[in-house]
Formats: sequence, structure tokens, C-alpha cells
Amino acid sequence: FRIIDYNESNVEISDSSPLATAKRLEKDNDVIWIDVIGVEDSTLLREFGELFGVHPLSLEDVVNINQRAKVEQFETYTYCVCKMVEKEKDVETEQLSIFLCGKFVITFRVKQGDCLNPLRKRIKEGLGYVRKRGSDYLVYAIIDTVVDHYFPVIDDIGDKLDELDALLINEEKGFSAAQVHSIRSDLLDLGRSLRPHREMINHLLRGEGSALSAETQLFMRDCYDHVTRLYESVETYREMCSDLRAYHLSIVSNRTNDVMKTLTIISSIFIPLGFIAGLYGMNFQYMPELQWQYGYGVVVALMVSIAGGLLLWFRKKGWFDDSI
Amino acid sequence: FRIIDYNESNVEISDSSPLATAKRLEKDNDVIWIDVIGVEDSTLLREFGELFGVHPLSLEDVVNINQRAKVEQFETYTYCVCKMVEKEKDVETEQLSIFLCGKFVITFRVKQGDCLNPLRKRIKEGLGYVRKRGSDYLVYAIIDTVVDHYFPVIDDIGDKLDELDALLINEEKGFSAAQVHSIRSDLLDLGRSLRPHREMINHLLRGEGSALSAETQLFMRDCYDHVTRLYESVETYREMCSDLRAYHLSIVSNRTNDVMKTLTIISSIFIPLGFIAGLYGMNFQYMPELQWQYGYGVVVALMVSIAGGLLLWFRKKGWFDDSI
Amino acid sequence: FRIIDYNESNVEISDSSPLATAKRLEKDNDVIWIDVIGVEDSTLLREFGELFGVHPLSLEDVVNINQRAKVEQFETYTYCVCKMVEKEKDVETEQLSIFLCGKFVITFRVKQGDCLNPLRKRIKEGLGYVRKRGSDYLVYAIIDTVVDHYFPVIDDIGDKLDELDALLINEEKGFSAAQVHSIRSDLLDLGRSLRPHREMINHLLRGEGSALSAETQLFMRDCYDHVTRLYESVETYREMCSDLRAYHLSIVSNRTNDVMKTLTIISSIFIPLGFIAGLYGMNFQYMPELQWQYGYGVVVALMVSIAGGLLLWFRKKGWFDDSI
Amino acid sequence: FRIIDYNESNVEISDSSPLATAKRLEKDNDVIWIDVIGVEDSTLLREFGELFGVHPLSLEDVVNINQRAKVEQFETYTYCVCKMVEKEKDVETEQLSIFLCGKFVITFRVKQGDCLNPLRKRIKEGLGYVRKRGSDYLVYAIIDTVVDHYFPVIDDIGDKLDELDALLINEEKGFSAAQVHSIRSDLLDLGRSLRPHREMINHLLRGEGSALSAETQLFMRDCYDHVTRLYESVETYREMCSDLRAYHLSIVSNRTNDVMKTLTIISSIFIPLGFIAGLYGMNFQYMPELQWQYGYGVVVALMVSIAGGLLLWFRKKGWFDDSI
Amino acid sequence: FRIIDYNESNVEISDSSPLATAKRLEKDNDVIWIDVIGVEDSTLLREFGELFGVHPLSLEDVVNINQRAKVEQFETYTYCVCKMVEKEKDVETEQLSIFLCGKFVITFRVKQGDCLNPLRKRIKEGLGYVRKRGSDYLVYAIIDTVVDHYFPVIDDIGDKLDELDALLINEEKGFSAAQVHSIRSDLLDLGRSLRPHREMINHLLRGEGSALSAETQLFMRDCYDHVTRLYESVETYREMCSDLRAYHLSIVSNRTNDVMKTLTIISSIFIPLGFIAGLYGMNFQYMPELQWQYGYGVVVALMVSIAGGLLLWFRKKGWFDDSI
Repeated sequence: FRIIDYNESNVEISDSSPLATAKRLEKDNDVIWIDVIGVEDSTLLREFGELFGVHPLSLEDVVNINQRAKVEQFETYTYCVCKMVEKEKDVETEQLSIFLCGKFVITFRVKQGDCLNPLRKRIKEGLGYVRKRGSDYLVYAIIDTVVDHYFPVIDDIGDKLDELDALLINEEKGFSAAQVHSIRSDLLDLGRSLRPHREMINHLLRGEGSALSAETQLFMRDCYDHVTRLYESVETYREMCSDLRAYHLSIVSNRTNDVMKTLTIISSIFIPLGFIAGLYGMNFQYMPELQWQYGYGVVVALMVSIAGGLLLWFRKKGWFDDSI
Repeated sequence: FRIIDYNESNVEISDSSPLATAKRLEKDNDVIWIDVIGVEDSTLLREFGELFGVHPLSLEDVVNINQRAKVEQFETYTYCVCKMVEKEKDVETEQLSIFLCGKFVITFRVKQGDCLNPLRKRIKEGLGYVRKRGSDYLVYAIIDTVVDHYFPVIDDIGDKLDELDALLINEEKGFSAAQVHSIRSDLLDLGRSLRPHREMINHLLRGEGSALSAETQLFMRDCYDHVTRLYESVETYREMCSDLRAYHLSIVSNRTNDVMKTLTIISSIFIPLGFIAGLYGMNFQYMPELQWQYGYGVVVALMVSIAGGLLLWFRKKGWFDDSI
Repeated sequence: FRIIDYNESNVEISDSSPLATAKRLEKDNDVIWIDVIGVEDSTLLREFGELFGVHPLSLEDVVNINQRAKVEQFETYTYCVCKMVEKEKDVETEQLSIFLCGKFVITFRVKQGDCLNPLRKRIKEGLGYVRKRGSDYLVYAIIDTVVDHYFPVIDDIGDKLDELDALLINEEKGFSAAQVHSIRSDLLDLGRSLRPHREMINHLLRGEGSALSAETQLFMRDCYDHVTRLYESVETYREMCSDLRAYHLSIVSNRTNDVMKTLTIISSIFIPLGFIAGLYGMNFQYMPELQWQYGYGVVVALMVSIAGGLLLWFRKKGWFDDSI
Repeated sequence: FRIIDYNESNVEISDSSPLATAKRLEKDNDVIWIDVIGVEDSTLLREFGELFGVHPLSLEDVVNINQRAKVEQFETYTYCVCKMVEKEKDVETEQLSIFLCGKFVITFRVKQGDCLNPLRKRIKEGLGYVRKRGSDYLVYAIIDTVVDHYFPVIDDIGDKLDELDALLINEEKGFSAAQVHSIRSDLLDLGRSLRPHREMINHLLRGEGSALSAETQLFMRDCYDHVTRLYESVETYREMCSDLRAYHLSIVSNRTNDVMKTLTIISSIFIPLGFIAGLYGMNFQYMPELQWQYGYGVVVALMVSIAGGLLLWFRKKGWFDDSI
Repeated sequence: FRIIDYNESNVEISDSSPLATAKRLEKDNDVIWIDVIGVEDSTLLREFGELFGVHPLSLEDVVNINQRAKVEQFETYTYCVCKMVEKEKDVETEQLSIFLCGKFVITFRVKQGDCLNPLRKRIKEGLGYVRKRGSDYLVYAIIDTVVDHYFPVIDDIGDKLDELDALLINEEKGFSAAQVHSIRSDLLDLGRSLRPHREMINHLLRGEGSALSAETQLFMRDCYDHVTRLYESVETYREMCSDLRAYHLSIVSNRTNDVMKTLTIISSIFIPLGFIAGLYGMNFQYMPELQWQYGYGVVVALMVSIAGGLLLWFRKKGWFDDSI
């Protein structure tokens, strides 16, 4: 784990000092962010629980990595759970636990992802407001970074859907129902991760005795808007998937109809003609037409008129028009 | 950008005086509307922020043009975001940021559209109430103009749908499932833009310490009704699209059924007859029927009776009725 | 327009006295109902607005005949909008504006329909309570008459749907998917008209400082129940349409399946047999079977056994059972 | 109509004494239940209205038998409407009006059903609490009896659906889409009847100045749970119908696919072979193959290899696997 | 039944002492859990009701094992109903009634399942907090154990769905629409069981005068999160089933389309060719082509060019591409 101790003018980063040392770091205006990677070390967790007076239930929630996003206000600290999103082949989420105890912000996560790197960079280089404000702003900044990480993932999905939509409308090759299906699954997962974030942030904003200062709440409201927008996008894209699916089905139906019409037109013309030909291919000895000099010509004329009649009938039925 | 400075008797329009000049224009009863086109000029934005005491978060929202419609009440000003709609080939929306700081109304938008032209004309020519009332009425007038711009777009869609509906019911050429699909996408976008406007206007009406005077709230309520009506239209038209889609599918199914019946009737009659003809086309030396004088006649009679029997059977099955 | 001036004992109807005369009619216990047909006469509207102190926004709403049903409470008057329904070929709605200013009830509508005739008759002949109560009861009576006019329209739709349902279940001729589709459109329109009436009446009942007396509110509550029942019927009938649509689709699928089975059974039997017949119709000089005395008999026996085998196989597959 | 006059120790039932007599029966601890069958007798209704001070609106509601379930609190009495369910061939509902005025409970219904018989028996034989408690408990007991009468109807539907589900999963004969369709209609009606009961009971429980004593409210809460459970069952069964419908459609699609595959396999093999046979059945004088001694053998070998090739190709395409 | 009497240091378990004995066990800090299996013994129930002052309605609810999960607060006790889930072949639920009266916790269930075994073990071995806290914590522990028992059942369903999804996307054998259908039924049942648990726990948390101490409420909140997560999983999995169903339908449609295309291509080529062959198989005496020396060659060339033309036409129509 890593300890980032900063105030407006200084940043100190130490990668391995023990937790107890961190606890003693309570200088005047410093904010101390302890970023723990890996939640399996139960000794560390117990030590942490004792140092900061954390309720055992919260510690259990840190270890159980299938929590929904939520916030819980305890007497001495505030505990938030977020879900960080990672898009590699599939969309995957990872749990981030955030504790705010006075000047300390302690975060726990399972893997060393790069979701929080931009924030760490901003602290190191003193960009933005983060160095100028307190620990509650750091909590906001972490949540905001996590939420903003959803944008590229969802925008990617939107682009992919627009592409599939264009392929389908122009009936070009490349559309794949399987892809729509798997995007819809991803959106289901994303929506399920995002929805509780809205409640969580709302709770941070409106909860009595909120852990955030009025100024930070202003920023948090912005973050709330982002989550709402993300969630609306997810819902919209899910609708788009359904629409694509329905449209695809109607195209397939139309094509089957086209194929059937082709088969029916050709079969309906040539099967009767073939029968007539077969009729005069019979080997009966007494078939007077066969000896008639004009028999062949008359039969061919009959065939032509049958074919013509059927074609007219199909045209009247509208079978040569493009399907609607 | 353009500065419109008006009171009940005078209008002054200047296209290029610097922002600071505008700030000094605080004459007695004047309302000053600063209409900025383009949001990329960060110097201008910073200058504006300093002059009017605007929070950096609001400035960020001006630049980030993917906001949802919303209203935010700050101590010294009120900040609204609207989405203006443009219908050329596709439906597109553009963000309009509105700041109300005392006598000043400042609007930011990306492109020089013609959505606000009617309002500017009304101010120039002194039509309606706008010249007789304060800056809060101007904010109302802007929002109302933006909202009313949705009507022709949505009415167009309604007309198009009625047309497609008539084509489909009369089973005439010209119906296109692709068109229904793309209208449905447009409606999805429109609904997504409109929905937050309702919240926004509601917030302006009911928010404690609303920025609007009681008289202007009366007008705003009317605008709220318009948004509600628009949103209901969008929902209704989306339902209509679904219904059209379902109806189209049922028509295609019926047609496939018709095509299949034609194929089946013709094949089922002529394939067995063709087989019989083939049978007596075989070249076995010992086929007594072939030498029989009435063989040919009997076989033809047999064929006629098979065809007749099958036709009766199909009629009994109702295959000659129109499909339902 | 027509002025109806009544109290418990007298009714006076005048068809053409000017509006100003009407205003002077303020006798002691009289209720005066001014029923204006046509909203294009802007002079009349302006005169009316001045006489009764009506806000310009309300006058605009009278002229703009695409309002949703709503109620607006102003200081000196109450303004309601209803949608009257007319069923001729399609379902159509017409806007009715109702003003309640003290003893006066003024209504505006576009066309001379017969929706309000029963009420006028009740006033003329002194039936029911309407003559015994004040102007707020008249407003109730008008709204109630408008709402009750929806019942026959919706009941008609219900009867039509029951009929279509019976046709479909018995698979009789006469069912038409187009009819279900157009009923569903009508229901969409009706639901859209009805929904805001509920809000409107609720607002009249619960709004602070309601314009209705306690006794009239009791009656209005009954009217609220009616609207609720109507709206529930509309929703139920829309569900029925969807169910009919789904059921129809399943019947069509089943029929296509039946048709396909018939085609497949006949083709699968006679195409192979036809091939065998064709085989022995070939003209090769060296085909030993052809010279064999029992060749013909053996081939026919082979054909019969192939046909029988295929029939058994199809029976085993359950293709002779009725489709489910 | 029938008058049941009971207290903890006595029950008196009289079938025909006039209403006025009943009114005089106000003995000390007695509860008097007047059960009127038939609502067409307007003289009786008027008399009843005068004796008990009932508002004309309530009397109208008694006669108009298409009310939704509701409760209305008047100054001197409480008026409830329930819908009793009857399942014979179709599901039918009948309106039951209940008046609670002090010690009197008066019920009106159209037909002499047997829905309330168990309650009457419990009163006669003194079973349960009903004899020991007041008139409000009787109202509860009536409503509870009406609600409990829904259980067998809905359980029947559940059993029927389970049966259909089992038939469909095992793809046995006997499944009927028409039956699912008609069950779904019944559930639509049942849901529509049940929904307002929930509001009604809730209103009785929570309405200020509820007509029920605290002890009876405890029982009523139980009845509320029953209605909730019934309504949830209706919703669940409607979902089951939709699922069955969708599953049936997928089975039909699969079967059509199977039928098509059979047709395609057989046709695709024998139509080309038939063509080759036809080719050598042509009567051209100069067809060298026909004179060739091995012509016949080679052609048959060619046919076998074509058939084999096609079979291998179809197997590779997976057409011999069971459809999924 | 079994009586477990424990405090922080001691546990006494007796399997058969009479209920009255249990009642007398009121030692100082002990919690007494009476676990009754089987609810048919009405004598026991009556005795229990008298000893603990339980309302007859609660006793009825114990016996009627189709209750929804709920909590009811009585003066002297709190009554909860939970549904325990068992997954053997189908998902089944069993009712668990919990009474909390002071130091006593009495549970009733129908069958001896193993759902509560882990809790009993924790009490016996003094693991966790349960021995250190009061009877309200025991109620929490029981409900928590019941709720946690849903996790493996629902996770199993999730795994099964993922497996089916993978099979379908790769279009491998093994997918079964019947399985999706039956999973969807199970989810319907699970959702119906779970939904009221949320209300129940919420009521325990927020109900005025909650039966739980503040500390236990903290734990209960955790349990509430679990139920929410479970319910969300159920909803998500139901969506997944619908998606799978829709995707399966689209795959079947595509396959039918493929099959049809194969049939149409082969038939459309060979049926016309077969007709031409049949034409020259006719036995007319006067067919000049037959005597022509190059007749055979020309006809074969004609056939090849027809086949080639049709193949080109089909290729142009895109029928050789993979279906989308």
C-alpha cells in the first residue's frame, strides 16, 4: 500500500511505511490518503480497524467484494463503496472502499488498476483544487474519478451501436446479432453498477450531517449530474439494442419472404410445365397427339401461355415489387 | 458576440464591444442580453467569470457541451442549461447556457443557429411583453423560444408517422421499416433531451427563492405545460412506432403465409401428377398398361381426379380464403 | 353564442345579446352560463377579457386548441380546459375552455357539437340538482357531462374487441389485424386525452382554496371515480389489443407451420419416387433391368414401400397431429 | 331481502319484515345486518335513503353496478363497494354495496350468489368472533369473505397454467394457445377488479376517523395482506402467460425450421438427381453416352456420389442435429 | 421441538422439555430460542399462545403457510414471517414464523430443513457475536441466515445462464429453450418471495418503536443490502432470460432463412433444367431438334448457361453471404 501525505505546499509519498506510522502523521493542515491494494491481508485490516475505530461490519464489507455502491455514516467515520469499471474484452467492475476519518482517507481495492492514476498525478503536480482543499474534497475527487472512468466505456458502446445501426440500415455485411446481444449484456451490468451510485451520491449530498462541506457538496452535485447522464445513456443504449434487435428481426423476416417468393415463382411456373412435358414423355402406344404433326408446336405454345399467365398473376399480386 | 441593451423605449445592439464595456452599461431600467456564440475562447470565459463572479464549475459546464438541461442557483446568479433542437437530416441538439445575474442575461452557444432569431426580432420591434419586463422575463422568453422550437420537429415526425401508418394499413408501396426505425431513434434522442427540461422548469417554478418573479412564474407555468405536452407527444409517437413495427411484422408473416400456400397448392398438385407421368415414361419392356388401348385416357382421368381431390381438400382447409 | 341565465325558478335563454349585457345580468341568485361557439373572434375575446379581468395567457390558451386538460386558479377566476370526445369514423377530441368567475360560467368551444345538449336540457326542464345549486355546481355538471361522453366511445371499443377476440378464438373469418391496429391507435389518443383530466379534477378537489364548495366537491369526487374507471378501461383495452396481436401472430405461425408440413410431406414422398421413375425413363441401351420381366413390378413395389416408410416416419415425428 | 339481527347470545332472521321495522330494532347490543338482493326496486332504495340519511350519490352508486371497489366516508355512515367474483365458465364479478350506519350494516347485491353463505352460517351457529363483536367487525367479515372468495378462482388458474406449462415443456399434445390467451384475459379482468380493493382497504385502515375500531383494524390488516397476495398472484400468472406464449412461439419456430430442413434435404438431393435422369431420358438421336456400354453404371455412380456429397455437406452444416 | 437456552458463557439444548418448562427458564441474561418443527399440533399452538399472550391472528398465520414475508408489531411481541428457500430440483420456499417476546425467540417451520444449521452451530460453539448479544440479535441472525441462503441458489442460476449464453453465442449444441423457460419461472418465484422481505426488513429498521436495538439495526441494515442485491440479481437474470430468448429467436429465424436459401437456390436451378430435359424427353414424332446432330450439345450448353445465370443472379442478391 501507499501513503500520500499532502498539504497545499508539500506532497510526501511513501510506499511501505507501516500503518501505525501513518496514523501518527497528523500534521496540521495535511490530508493523508492511504491507498491499500489487496484486501486479503486480514492482519492489516484488523490493525486498521483498531487504529481508526472502524466497525467490524465495515471491515467485512471491504473483504466481501460484491457490494453495491453505498455510503454508511458512522460516528467517527464515513464509509463509501464504489464500483470502478474496466473495459478490456468484457466490461468488468472492481470494488473500491473509501473511508473518511477526519484528515485520513483510506481506500481499499483488489487490483492495481490505473483508474485512479490521473488523480494521483494531479495531487503530485498540484493541478486543480485537490491540494488546496480538505479530505472531504479528496473523497469527492476519488468518486468523481471513478465515475468519469465510465464515460469512455459507455461512449465506446454508443459508437459501436451507431456503427451497427448504420450497417443494418444500409443492409451491409458486418452486422452481427451476437454483438448486439453481448452489448446488451454489458449494458445490463453497467446499469446495475451505476444505479446505486446515484443513491450513494444523493445520500452524501442530502444525508443529515453530511460528511462533505458545503463547497464540496457543490462539486458533488456536478458528479451527481454525471452519474445521471451516464445512467440515462445506459438506458438509451439498451433501448437502442432492443430497437436494433426488432429491426433485424423484421429484415430477416422480409428476406425470408423474398427468398420464398423467388422459390414460389420459379417452382410454380416450371413444375406444371414439367408435368406437361412428362405427360407427353409417357410411352403409351395409343396417344394420338404424339402422331399429330403440330402437336409439338401446340404444346410448346400452351406452355408459353401458362408461364405468361402465371407471371401476370404474380405481378398482379405484387410479388415482383420489393418487399416493404 | 452580441450585446442587446434594451428598456421599454430603447434598444441598442452592438456586435463587438468588449465584455467589460457591457458590464459598465448598468443604466437604470435596462436589461442587457449578452449573446456569446462559440465557447472555445477561454480568455473570454475567464474574463466573464471574473466580472460576474461565476463559479468555475459553471464555466466548465459551459464548455462541456454534453450537459443535460438543468438549473443551478448560486448566490449571485442563476445558471440554466437548455438543449436547442435542430432538424436537418437528423435531429440534433445544441447546448444553450443561460446566466441570469441581476440585470444581465448572458447566453452561450456553440453555433450561430436561427433558433433565437424570432425572439431577437420581437425585442428589436418591441412586440409582446419582452420589452416591458425585466431580465427574468427575458430568461423565460429564451427558454420558451427554445422549447417552442421542438414543436415543428415533433409535429413533422407525427405527420410522417401518420403517413407511414396510412401506407401500411392500405398495404401500399412506400412503407419502409427502416424509416420507422430511424424515427424511433430520433424520438429516443428527443425524449432524452426533453425530459430534463421538465425538471429544470419545475425547479425554476418551485425552487425556494426562485429567480423568477411571481408574474414571470405564471408565464413559466405555461412553458411547463408545453414541455409536458411535447414529452407526451414523444412518448405517444414512440408507442406508435412500436405499433407500426408490430403491425408490419404481422403483415409480413401473413404474406409469407400466402406465398407458402401458393407454393404448396401448386407443388402438391403437380408433383404427384408429374410422378405418374414419369411412371409411364419408364422404358421397361414389360409394362402391360402401355399396350392397353385406353391406358392413356384412364391415366389422364386419374390425374384429373387427383388434382380435383386435392383442390377440394385445400378448399376445405380454408387455404383459398384470404389470410386473416 | 348563447346566454343561459337561471335560478331555481326561472330560465332565460338569449342567443345573441352582447356580452356587456350579460355582464349586467347580475341578479341575486342567478347563475349565468355564457356558451361561446367558435374561438376565432378576437374582438369578442378581448372584450370578454376586459369585462371579466382575464389574464392574457388564459385567452391565448382558449385560442390555442391543442391544450392538455388542466385547471388554473387565478385571483378572480378559475380556468379549466377539458377535451370533449367525438366518435364518428375516427376518435376526435375538441377543446372546451371553462371560466368560473363568481356567478358567471363562460365556456368556449370550436364547433357546435351535441356533447353538452343533455345538460342544457336538464337546465331548461329543471331536472336534477343543477338549477338548485350555484355556479360551481354548473362547472361540475359541465365537466361531468364531458367525461360521461367518453363512456359510449370506450364501451364501443370494448364491444368491438370482444367481437374480434371471439372471431380469433374460433378462427372464423372476419378478424382483421388492421382493425386491432387502428383500435390501438384510437386508445392511444383516448388515453392521452383522459390522463390529464384526472390531474385536473384532482387539482380541483385538493387544490388549496378550491373553487368548489364542499358539497360540489362530493359530486366531483364521483366524477374523479369515473375518469379513473375510464382510464383503467383504456389501459385494459390496450392490453387486450396487445394480447390479440400476439395471439394472432401465434395463429399465423401455426398456420405457416401447417402449410409447410403439407408441402414437405407431399414433396418428400413424390420427389424421390419421381426420381426413380425418371431413372428408368433413361434411354441407355444397356440397362439390364429394363429387359427383366419383373422389373416393372419390383420398381412399383419399391416405390410403394418408400412411400409407406416415409409416411410412417412422418407419423412418428407427429406431423399428422394438429399443431399446438 | 333478509334481516339478520344478532348479539352474542341470540340470532333472529326474518326474511320479509319491512325496512321500517328493521330500523326500529335498535336493541342494546345488537348488530343488524340487512341483506338486500336486487337493486332495481327504486321505492325501497328511496325509503332506505330516507331512513338512514344516505346521500343520493351513494344511492346512485348502488344502482350503477359498474363501480370500482371504493370506500366513502360520510358524516353519518360509511359506504363501501366490493366486487364479488364468480367463476363458472368465465370469470365474472358482481358488485356488493355495504353501508355501515351505527349498529346497522346494509348490503346490496344484484343476484343471490353463494359467496356470503359461509359468513351467514358462522353467524347463525355462533362460530368465530363475529357474534362477539360489533357492526364494524361484521363489515370486516363481509369484505374478508368476499376477498377470500378470489383464492379458489386464482388458484384454479394457477393449476391450469402449471398443467399447460408441463404439457408445453414435454411437448405433449393438449397445449392450446387459445387457452393461454383466454386465461390471460381472465387475469386482466381479475387484476382490474382486485387492484382497487387494495386502495379501499388501505383507506379503511389509514383514513382519518376510520370507521373501524382498533381491534377490527388488526383483522383488516390481515385482509389487506390477502388482497396483496392475490394481486401478486395475478401479476405472476400474467407473467407466466407471457412466458408460455413466448416459449410456444419459439417451439413453433423451431418446428417450422425442422420441417423446412427435412424438405430442403430431400428436395436438394432428389431434384438434381431427377434432372440427371431426365437428361438421359431425352430423345435426341445423337447422344453418344446412351450407346456407351458403361453409361448407365457411370451415371448411377455419379448420382450416388452427388447424393453422398450433399449429405456430407448437410451434416457439416449441422442440419441433422436436433434444433436448439 | 428444541429449546436452546444460552448466555455468553453457557448453552443448554434440550430436545423435548414441555413448553411450560421453557417459559420458566427466565434466568438473568439468557436468551431462549424455541425452535418448533411442524405446525399441525394445534394443542401446542394454543398452549404457546396462552403462555406468551399471542393474538389468535398470529397463530392462524403460523398455520397458514402461504403468507408473504412480513412483520407485525404487537404490544407484547413482534411477529415476523420469512420464506426459506430450498433448491433441489425446483426452487421451493418454506415459511418460517419468528416470534420475539422479550428474552424468548420462538420459531415455527414445517420441515426439518438444514437452512438454520449453521446458526445453531455458531451458537453452540460460541462463534461470532450471537452469544454476546440479546434476543433481538438472534432474530437478526435468523433472518440473515435465511436471506444468505438465497445466494447460492441465485448464483447457481446465474452460472447456468452464463453457460447457456456462451453456448448460444458460439452456436454450440446443448442450448435448450426449455431450460431458459424453466429458469425464468424459478426467477419469477424467487422474486415473488424476495420482494416482501425488503419491506419486512425496512419495517424492522424504520418502524416506530422498532423491536431492534440501535446496534442490531446496524447489522440489519447490512441484511437489507443483501436482500436488495439479491433482488437486483433476480431482476437482472430475468432480463438475461428475455435477452437469451430474443437472441435464440433471431438465431432460429436466421437458420430458417439459411435453410430456405439453400432450398431455393437448388430448386430454382434444377427445376427449370429438369423441365428442359423433360421437354426433349417428349415422344412427339415431329420434333425437328431431336434429329439435329448438334441438338444435344446445344441443349446442354443452354442448361449450363441458365444455371450460370441464376447463380450469378443469386450471388448479386447476396444469397451466398452468411446471413446477418
